[in-house]
Formats: sequence, structure tokens, C-alpha cells
Amino acid sequence: MSQVATEQLLKSDSLLTDRVRLVIAVTLAGAKEPMDFRSLLDALNLTKGNLSSHMRKLEEAGIVHIQKEFIDRKPKTTYTLSNKGREELKAYLDTIENFVRAAENL
Amino acid sequence: MSQVATEQLLKSDSLLTDRVRLVIAVTLAGAKEPMDFRSLLDALNLTKGNLSSHMRKLEEAGIVHIQKEFIDRKPKTTYTLSNKGREELKAYLDTIENFVRAAENL
Repeated sequence: MSQVATEQLLKSDSLLTDRVRLVIAVTLAGAKEPMDFRSLLDALNLTKGNLSSHMRKLEEAGIVHIQKEFIDRKPKTTYTLSNKGREELKAYLDTIENFVRAAENL
Repeated sequence: MSQVATEQLLKSDSLLTDRVRLVIAVTLAGAKEPMDFRSLLDALNLTKGNLSSHMRKLEEAGIVHIQKEFIDRKPKTTYTLSNKGREELKAYLDTIENFVRAAENL
């Protein structure tokens, strides 16, 4: 087992080490356009409270951008992955991939 | 993004979804012989309390076997990954791998 791959995985302090947040980031990364709260809920099958707590953390960390606008006088909030979020996601996916590859060579 | 890969990752209720426990399992899987507490500590760079709490959970779930014996009249405790643990590890590594592969195809 590669010590480096293990240490990388254990040392990462990204918010994306939480698998729910990782899935949120991946879902946003794959979305063709900004997603609203309802679409995220449907895609992820989480409770509102759970999703909203994760989105707040991701926003505070600058991983997710929130856009608020009015459409037909109704407020609409949408989410996108920021550039920082995209980089952090890529880096963490690489970390997991290296780890899994090393683990499967056991 | 594959919905199946995402759901598999989110639905797993394995103790190995915790990355520290995942690394412990991988370390035991790669060990040529049973490991004692000290070697695990050295390999993983955790605190005693943290490692011992994870080992207890892994033992209770039947993922890790504990052997206690006396060597030169001193008690010695060693740990191995059980067959159940090995299967669960393999299954969870496959889950992560499928997820990462789907995520990288975005």
C-alpha cells in the first residue's frame, strides 16, 4: 500500500471528504446549467434540512456560488460549482483515485 | 454522472465509509501478518484514543478480528481483517471506484 496515497487521503481537510458533499459537488459539476434547490433535492434524495445545511457550508467555503434572482416576481435561488470548487473537486477525486488504485494493488 | 454510482455511494451503510476506518482496513488487508496496536499507530499516525475507538467499532461489526496471546508472559493483542471485512472492503472500494470513474467522465 502506498504510504503517500494513504496520507493524502487522511490529511485532506476539504469539505468534500464528506461523501454527501462530494456527491453534491459532482452533481453540480455535471449540470449543464445552475441548479435550483428542488432539482438538487430530487437528484440527491436528501431531506431539505440536510441539503440546506450542506449547501450553507459549501457556500461559506467558496465551493458553491449562489445566485438569487426574480423570475415572474418569484425569488429563485440557483447553485453552481465555483472555480475553486471545481479545482478542489478534481484534486479530491484524484486523491481518492490514487488511494483506490494503491489499495487494489494489495 | 451515473445515478447508480451516486446512489451506491450514498446508500452504503458500511463502517468503511469513514475514511480513517477505510485506511485501517486497507492497511490490515495489506499486512503480511497480524498487526499489533503499536504498528497500526505508527502506520496511521493517529492518536491512541482515536485508533482504539475505531478498532472497537470495527471489531463489533465483525470487520476486524482480535487475537490476544501471551508472549514471554506479556499480553499481546494483534488485529487482522476478517473475511467479512475483506469482502466489505472490496465492495466499498468498488463503489468508490465506480463513483470516481463516473465523476471523471463529466
